Amino acid sequence: MGIQLNNCDDCAERLERLLSLVPDYNIQYENDAMVRQSMLTKPDGSLGALEQLSARLAGITELETPEFIHPHVFIFAADHGVAKTQRVSAYPQSVTNEMVLNFARGGAVVNALANHIGATLHVVDVGVDCEKHCSPRVVTDKVRNGTDDWSTGPAMTSLDAISAMEAGANAVLTSDPLDLVVVGEMGIGNTATAAVLIAATTSVPSKLLVGPGTGLDVNGIAVKLQVIERGLARRDGTEDVFTLLYEFGGLEIAAMVGAIIAATSRRSPVILDGLISTLSGFLACLMNPKVRNYLIAGHLSPEPAHAVILERMSLVPLLDLGLRLGEASGATLAVPLVTAAAAILKNVSTFEQAGISTKS
Amino acid sequence: MGIQLNNCDDCAERLERLLSLVPDYNIQYENDAMVRQSMLTKPDGSLGALEQLSARLAGITELETPEFIHPHVFIFAADHGVAKTQRVSAYPQSVTNEMVLNFARGGAVVNALANHIGATLHVVDVGVDCEKHCSPRVVTDKVRNGTDDWSTGPAMTSLDAISAMEAGANAVLTSDPLDLVVVGEMGIGNTATAAVLIAATTSVPSKLLVGPGTGLDVNGIAVKLQVIERGLARRDGTEDVFTLLYEFGGLEIAAMVGAIIAATSRRSPVILDGLISTLSGFLACLMNPKVRNYLIAGHLSPEPAHAVILERMSLVPLLDLGLRLGEASGATLAVPLVTAAAAILKNVSTFEQAGISTKS
Repeated sequence: MGIQLNNCDDCAERLERLLSLVPDYNIQYENDAMVRQSMLTKPDGSLGALEQLSARLAGITELETPEFIHPHVFIFAADHGVAKTQRVSAYPQSVTNEMVLNFARGGAVVNALANHIGATLHVVDVGVDCEKHCSPRVVTDKVRNGTDDWSTGPAMTSLDAISAMEAGANAVLTSDPLDLVVVGEMGIGNTATAAVLIAATTSVPSKLLVGPGTGLDVNGIAVKLQVIERGLARRDGTEDVFTLLYEFGGLEIAAMVGAIIAATSRRSPVILDGLISTLSGFLACLMNPKVRNYLIAGHLSPEPAHAVILERMSLVPLLDLGLRLGEASGATLAVPLVTAAAAILKNVSTFEQAGISTKS
Repeated sequence: MGIQLNNCDDCAERLERLLSLVPDYNIQYENDAMVRQSMLTKPDGSLGALEQLSARLAGITELETPEFIHPHVFIFAADHGVAKTQRVSAYPQSVTNEMVLNFARGGAVVNALANHIGATLHVVDVGVDCEKHCSPRVVTDKVRNGTDDWSTGPAMTSLDAISAMEAGANAVLTSDPLDLVVVGEMGIGNTATAAVLIAATTSVPSKLLVGPGTGLDVNGIAVKLQVIERGLARRDGTEDVFTLLYEFGGLEIAAMVGAIIAATSRRSPVILDGLISTLSGFLACLMNPKVRNYLIAGHLSPEPAHAVILERMSLVPLLDLGLRLGEASGATLAVPLVTAAAAILKNVSTFEQAGISTKS
């Protein structure tokens, strides 16, 4: 199908401009932080994964002892044409908007979790299929009312995709003060969209990538797989990542790609949630590999494709609690681990300061 | 060797009094909380381990929607004669007191982590081997200056053991307000003491229980194993758990057993840290099985014996980050997960409240 930029003369330029925002990761700060870790009053290595995590935070922020006091949780919401016309979800498509209304009223899990850690929560409607009952209490930066069904034709145009990416970036670029970004989503049907995008961008067979989502049974999973295979058959194999994004993507997925890139431009760590937000991080890395060092895997979802793309990015999740909710819940739960790793690096005394004997 | 209560006529009675403090767990509150979880605006089961955790918190506290706003972290510190006379640790015994001084000055990892979650930190010296350089800034409820070497004779008397248990209990019973208890320890050599106690209370061969502790090499581990085998040879196989505790235990381990029992009496969840505090929970369960339902495993340590006793208690750890520091660090890191599980149960809307469609 090839890159179709005919409806968007400046799409390539806008994409290039966005991708150029990603700064170099600063390995020197990471190395210095690992040296500092080895001087703190604890056996070397005894804090396991938190030691390397704290060092990465230094490399991301270019701060010797970073501190995170303004975490922001961004939920991007959009609908998927594939969920309207095919049976790929256990829930009706209307739940996307119903959950956005729930976020706006403060009644969802992510509201409880964002309050719990003192984070600012943003709910951004970039493509919910609603006219009359859209919530006035969410940020609306809507590109269109949901995508088209990618199993039968392109999900959206290249203009839609770049517009959604820019909407995501704008949400992060205009939030101040901000020093930590969590990305999550709401979009009924989006585990199917994620699976088709992962199958299209990796060599992994789609049957290894398809799971129950929010609760499909075995028959439901089989139907979901057929829909994905039908979509994949539309490829000619020459598509670049951006093309795959508008051919098979979701508006919330494109928005998260933009939000992640914008977060890196602010030298903010990005905590990824489950399958869908991690896929967005993966797509951002494929577009610009410098993104990878800014990403932190909040948790491991049981959705099978999640482990596949985490492994591709060599990201080890902080939590493994069987969470499969989405809406940034797992990533928000992981925030205290990230801020704790930073607090240890900053506040623990060195052996010399404390006058403590070292290993005998 | 049999139970030697000859130096302590009222030990059996004091032990009985302590063990009788454990109240019945309330399964009805747990069941009701699981029903409430299924009504919250999320796919059923999508919060994985946190759903059951929140229900257990209800069962522990006898509150429909528990809340934890006064977490307390208790570090019990003591020395081990076996670390003085045998080579079972990578660090000299003096580090126990040096670290207690570091806790008192606020320079250790647990200080950073307790501050991070707004917990009250108590450092209780129940048996540090110090005379001149003890810190005046810690709680001193010292039974004696360290134990004797359990590889050649009893670690302590039955009076010492019950006194240390009561010291631990008192620390918890006199802290107000309090609704969540984290137990941890400091004691050079105590992974060896933990391994000998686990070998003595389970049928697991000691070679499967011995690890590097704070950083022994392969030769060091082999020596540690020999010391443990020598100690185990002193048994006659008829000892009850309390006898094994004074024959082979540590004063901080006995104190944690008492602290855990006292926490249950206040209907407070107890978050266990690594091997040593988990062993204390295990011993408390052997003394009174009702303790088990009050215990939460904060994390999984790489020390091999840890997984063994977690499995014996059917406890699944919340974190698995390769932490092996002790001093309550892993348990303190897990506190936000526990409080978040409770916040979800309390604050998330039900489907009915939110007017959201259920599964189609």
